[in-house]
Amino acid sequence: MKALVFKKPYEVQVEQVDDPKIEQPLDAVIRITSANICGSDLHPYEGRSPLDAGMVLGHENMGIVEEVGPGVERIKVGDRVSVPFNIACGTCRNCNNGFTSACLRANPSGNPGAGYGYPQMGPYWGGQAEYLRVPWADFNLLELPAGTEWENDFTMLSDILPTGYHGTELAGLKPGETIAIFGAGPVGLMAALSANIRGASQTFVVDKEPDRLALAERLGATAIDFSKVDVEEAILEHTDGFGVDTGVEAVGFQAHDHTGQEHPEMVLDNLVNVVRATGRIGVVGVYVPDDPQSPSPMAGDGRIGFDFGAAFEKGIRIATGQCPVKRYNRELRDLIIRGKASPGLIVSQEIGLDEMPDAYSRFDKREDGWTKVVMHPTAA
Amino acid sequence: MKALVFKKPYEVQVEQVDDPKIEQPLDAVIRITSANICGSDLHPYEGRSPLDAGMVLGHENMGIVEEVGPGVERIKVGDRVSVPFNIACGTCRNCNNGFTSACLRANPSGNPGAGYGYPQMGPYWGGQAEYLRVPWADFNLLELPAGTEWENDFTMLSDILPTGYHGTELAGLKPGETIAIFGAGPVGLMAALSANIRGASQTFVVDKEPDRLALAERLGATAIDFSKVDVEEAILEHTDGFGVDTGVEAVGFQAHDHTGQEHPEMVLDNLVNVVRATGRIGVVGVYVPDDPQSPSPMAGDGRIGFDFGAAFEKGIRIATGQCPVKRYNRELRDLIIRGKASPGLIVSQEIGLDEMPDAYSRFDKREDGWTKVVMHPTAA
Amino acid sequence: MKALVFKKPYEVQVEQVDDPKIEQPLDAVIRITSANICGSDLHPYEGRSPLDAGMVLGHENMGIVEEVGPGVERIKVGDRVSVPFNIACGTCRNCNNGFTSACLRANPSGNPGAGYGYPQMGPYWGGQAEYLRVPWADFNLLELPAGTEWENDFTMLSDILPTGYHGTELAGLKPGETIAIFGAGPVGLMAALSANIRGASQTFVVDKEPDRLALAERLGATAIDFSKVDVEEAILEHTDGFGVDTGVEAVGFQAHDHTGQEHPEMVLDNLVNVVRATGRIGVVGVYVPDDPQSPSPMAGDGRIGFDFGAAFEKGIRIATGQCPVKRYNRELRDLIIRGKASPGLIVSQEIGLDEMPDAYSRFDKREDGWTKVVMHPTAA
Amino acid sequence: MKALVFKKPYEVQVEQVDDPKIEQPLDAVIRITSANICGSDLHPYEGRSPLDAGMVLGHENMGIVEEVGPGVERIKVGDRVSVPFNIACGTCRNCNNGFTSACLRANPSGNPGAGYGYPQMGPYWGGQAEYLRVPWADFNLLELPAGTEWENDFTMLSDILPTGYHGTELAGLKPGETIAIFGAGPVGLMAALSANIRGASQTFVVDKEPDRLALAERLGATAIDFSKVDVEEAILEHTDGFGVDTGVEAVGFQAHDHTGQEHPEMVLDNLVNVVRATGRIGVVGVYVPDDPQSPSPMAGDGRIGFDFGAAFEKGIRIATGQCPVKRYNRELRDLIIRGKASPGLIVSQEIGLDEMPDAYSRFDKREDGWTKVVMHPTAA
Repeated sequence: MKALVFKKPYEVQVEQVDDPKIEQPLDAVIRITSANICGSDLHPYEGRSPLDAGMVLGHENMGIVEEVGPGVERIKVGDRVSVPFNIACGTCRNCNNGFTSACLRANPSGNPGAGYGYPQMGPYWGGQAEYLRVPWADFNLLELPAGTEWENDFTMLSDILPTGYHGTELAGLKPGETIAIFGAGPVGLMAALSANIRGASQTFVVDKEPDRLALAERLGATAIDFSKVDVEEAILEHTDGFGVDTGVEAVGFQAHDHTGQEHPEMVLDNLVNVVRATGRIGVVGVYVPDDPQSPSPMAGDGRIGFDFGAAFEKGIRIATGQCPVKRYNRELRDLIIRGKASPGLIVSQEIGLDEMPDAYSRFDKREDGWTKVVMHPTAA
Repeated sequence: MKALVFKKPYEVQVEQVDDPKIEQPLDAVIRITSANICGSDLHPYEGRSPLDAGMVLGHENMGIVEEVGPGVERIKVGDRVSVPFNIACGTCRNCNNGFTSACLRANPSGNPGAGYGYPQMGPYWGGQAEYLRVPWADFNLLELPAGTEWENDFTMLSDILPTGYHGTELAGLKPGETIAIFGAGPVGLMAALSANIRGASQTFVVDKEPDRLALAERLGATAIDFSKVDVEEAILEHTDGFGVDTGVEAVGFQAHDHTGQEHPEMVLDNLVNVVRATGRIGVVGVYVPDDPQSPSPMAGDGRIGFDFGAAFEKGIRIATGQCPVKRYNRELRDLIIRGKASPGLIVSQEIGLDEMPDAYSRFDKREDGWTKVVMHPTAA
Repeated sequence: MKALVFKKPYEVQVEQVDDPKIEQPLDAVIRITSANICGSDLHPYEGRSPLDAGMVLGHENMGIVEEVGPGVERIKVGDRVSVPFNIACGTCRNCNNGFTSACLRANPSGNPGAGYGYPQMGPYWGGQAEYLRVPWADFNLLELPAGTEWENDFTMLSDILPTGYHGTELAGLKPGETIAIFGAGPVGLMAALSANIRGASQTFVVDKEPDRLALAERLGATAIDFSKVDVEEAILEHTDGFGVDTGVEAVGFQAHDHTGQEHPEMVLDNLVNVVRATGRIGVVGVYVPDDPQSPSPMAGDGRIGFDFGAAFEKGIRIATGQCPVKRYNRELRDLIIRGKASPGLIVSQEIGLDEMPDAYSRFDKREDGWTKVVMHPTAA
Repeated sequence: MKALVFKKPYEVQVEQVDDPKIEQPLDAVIRITSANICGSDLHPYEGRSPLDAGMVLGHENMGIVEEVGPGVERIKVGDRVSVPFNIACGTCRNCNNGFTSACLRANPSGNPGAGYGYPQMGPYWGGQAEYLRVPWADFNLLELPAGTEWENDFTMLSDILPTGYHGTELAGLKPGETIAIFGAGPVGLMAALSANIRGASQTFVVDKEPDRLALAERLGATAIDFSKVDVEEAILEHTDGFGVDTGVEAVGFQAHDHTGQEHPEMVLDNLVNVVRATGRIGVVGVYVPDDPQSPSPMAGDGRIGFDFGAAFEKGIRIATGQCPVKRYNRELRDLIIRGKASPGLIVSQEIGLDEMPDAYSRFDKREDGWTKVVMHPTAA
């Protein structure tokens, strides 16, 4: 099959590779109809997270079941399915508790959590390809209505819609509360969409890219451009000086100020300052324990010196971590089907597999209008 | 009346001061039968948190209602009561939501949260004295059975028993789970007692003082002496390499290693390392946004450079803040009355008011056997 | 002042009565700008719940603070406020736990729960009048933005919007789930509005009145006319045979079938049958322990012989009870102010105090188009 | 193998039957070391729930894994395991949500929920036999420490300890609260043990059998003999007239008064009367939609005419249903291993397979001292 293969930092290539096949009784093989580029694909692309050459990239996948192993009984050949980015065994303690993001058995390294085409997430090839092998298919796959409807909405179910939703869940957002979302990339925008679903009374989205802020406003949020205003002042003003009830971090360890300088603690500081006493923060932007290329040696060791003293004084709760997609994707799918959520509105490019190297390069440069790239390697 | 008055760091004195009186319609005046020295009283005592000379100290108070204002209708003169350390109006948004620790109206400074005899908690005198004025008495006071029974148990209801319990609540401890509590001071020990109440399957308590570790063992916990063993290794070994489900920080910003050096990030680092992926940490040890005397300039600004990258990777939740005592004190009282909890077992000294200056000095030096001092200024 | 006075079943009269005044230090007196007729006002009106002659009716009240007692410090004269229908002391155990609907001190009968102008809810006059006395004003009153904006939205905050919301909360409705609401009266419609706020993927509303079903559809719900289709079949068909995740009972003990016959167990049976195994039901429609005029002697003793065996087999949870308005009204107010909820759209008549006797009569007959009557006794 | 086979009401027989074998890739076969008689085994035994002749009985099973299918990868031959009474596929929506008690795929009838050796729970043979086939073994089996320690404690993990715990969970029991448990059979006693684990301040257990009430007292509960005192009065007296916070129904549809007459609504009525306003009831005693032999025609249709009007007036929540064992069994196992729970103390008889027919007969007659029978068909 054809697949997008990682060669070295800033170099990805479409190549002919071996077809994936059923390796275990519970495997399925999926023909990919949509696979998206994720912001976190840029971590290996930029060499910030080391990845071996030869890995097929891509963890945002959906498609049609092509073949199933002899132990697969729920999912059928021909089913249209969404593939959560987490690979989970379905029977370990963490899977039992709903933490498919921390499966204890799927990652041969022994670390909790596995995924497709990603550094440290196991040997599993990604889905930026024509086909994808899915382990524990009955447990992992989410069935979708047959046909081609909602393809660009459903393709958000593998990662960013649940991840944005997870941010609001970690933040404990309740109906009628206010929320400040830092980062208007795809995850931040999906967090804003999720805030609508959960009945937020007011949603602030902070970024500096006009195209992304415009999308935030289309989602009913109040856009805050941190290159133009003092974010903390702006949000406090809008909230009678009290601050927001909840906040979401959708930026991660590479946070830059408006001059382009990296400040790993900046967004957490902002959040601690704009979230009211007794408030809650959900962190879905990625932080890492080792970051050899960090401009700050402390942050290189995972140490983020944000104002924890202020967080304690305000009694703030900070919840973190990768999204366990299965916890949310069924309900989010149903909201799409019943017309209550349209995450596909952020799709900015639909391309073929051969256009992927160019798309990576432009998405990495944050070219204007490159918000979310969906690739269709085979017909839906 | 006689009261313990703060003069300057390391100097407190028993003096004659004006009797407190009813100032507002909802006030009560309490005759103090028990008032304890709290570990956090040492922050102003050591000059680490600046306090004006003349303040009457003491926020762990109980006694008998002596007089009530004209708007007080629930509490009666003669009632035996516990006084939560938080002063709360009972009608603001935070009080409505159960956050009496962040009352929006009680502190004239405008900061959320007020209390007795403590820096930045408002002008309210403390109860290390013969009498105490209690604002919003009907809302704040917890009624106790008449008489003198359980005096040393009930006196833990004003702060440390609820605060220890709050640690386990912030950690989301569920029956059958494991917990590691850092700090075997009174709050840590009360967290261990609370872990029993909540059905922990195993409780680890980490400290280096033999008398405190012995109390932890009396409470059924596994004591870990960090001056003798590697804490992280020890806990991981006891938990099959996975770590504990939950952790409690009961040390605070002045954490010392076993050589006596201050490391503000040490305990949080330990917790992140011993708590399992998907786990939860409750922080009731105090961290502050400004600490001019900190040995670390960064920590002096409240910035605690713990390994947040590892916390994110493990998907850990960190919840913080002062305890809203009213959320727990009624149920804890009932557990005492029905013989299910005996927090008074940690009381090490019972003294009179005149002995307080000496007691502060010895408690501050952590003299062996000085775990928890209860002062009885008037007869119960 | 002028007030609507209950004389006997089917007879209410506008009369001159004594002005309410400050009786306790924590009282306020409100000038009423809006007071609605509630469906439950029809229980005493129809003589189904015995009420003494002379009572001023009305528990859905809002207005302007005219005077406050000497212990009132948060609420100010001139404030625009919503008055929750529950009268709560703010300091008893149930109030502490957020159950203002079961205040242990406000009702002189000793029964939990008190209210305005209603049988068995204490001696408190209602607000279908020019003025209203509000006990424990600082605790009970919700402040609103000054002015006249959103008057017909805010007037829903005293009862039916929180009550409808409470139905969805008792049902444990989560984002993406489905819900079936029985009864398209004002409370059922507010439950439908609340289901939107909470992110329901699909909302069914069951009734037989075309005007009410039309309003349900305006709220985005799927209307089910039980006089025309088999309700259970219809809902099961829409949900792939599984049934809905949650249900709300917004009808109460006087449930009638489409021929007009009373069947007290009918709606609970419907709910048990349309809610899926593991589902949840919230009951806010009123059931009573004594109903001397019930057509069924068993129901006359509060015994409702619904299919509890089926409920157990399906593992269904049934939560019941009056709404504690304070638990929800602040967030619902904020959703109104920020344009996320417009409960006033169900208002069908706006009238003066003198028109009330006629309005009661027409509302009681469920005349077409009489959905929700708002009375403005004085200018907003 | 030898197995206990149901012949007809009141007749069970030990017979030679075919050995169970691996039928599906995810199956395991277990050699049974302990299998208990459950109170609900008496429903088919007494003919109250119709069962086909030839069924091997028994759903409380534990043992050693003898053989596994080709798709089983987590569980190994030789593992000591507890077998939850629910059979669950691990991949359907209900299993995903933690409701293994309502698995949508395991029961060929299409009804949610499957189990071993029980009416309407599918074709699966029970474990009162030498061997047992377990479907979806990796998902269903709970691993236990090797050896023979805690055998009589661990054998409670397959049903009654989790079921008793589920009662307290459905009742929402929180630390420091009070609870009244109706029924001191094995499930009621396990609910009392669970109330201890969860930190109840006081536990009442209601029954009339002296041996069972004595066990309740050994567990620290207050025993109430309903043949000697008025239950409702007794509990209200112990709780200052307010009643208990929570209640558990551990009796079911065959509730008898002290004269031996069946009153299906009696226990629910008691619970509604002794649980305080705002309280919660968990129902784990079995109620059924069809009971052809009921003395009451209404109850024969599942209709239980308890005082729902009073329940509504008090705002009580009633949660019901079979226990999803997997939700609790791991944590309960850990409490046993760490010495915090000893459910085996209720074991009254340990017998061999050949003694089972006699044991059924005596247990069915509730002979004095026959509380819980554990059968060991093969050596542990």
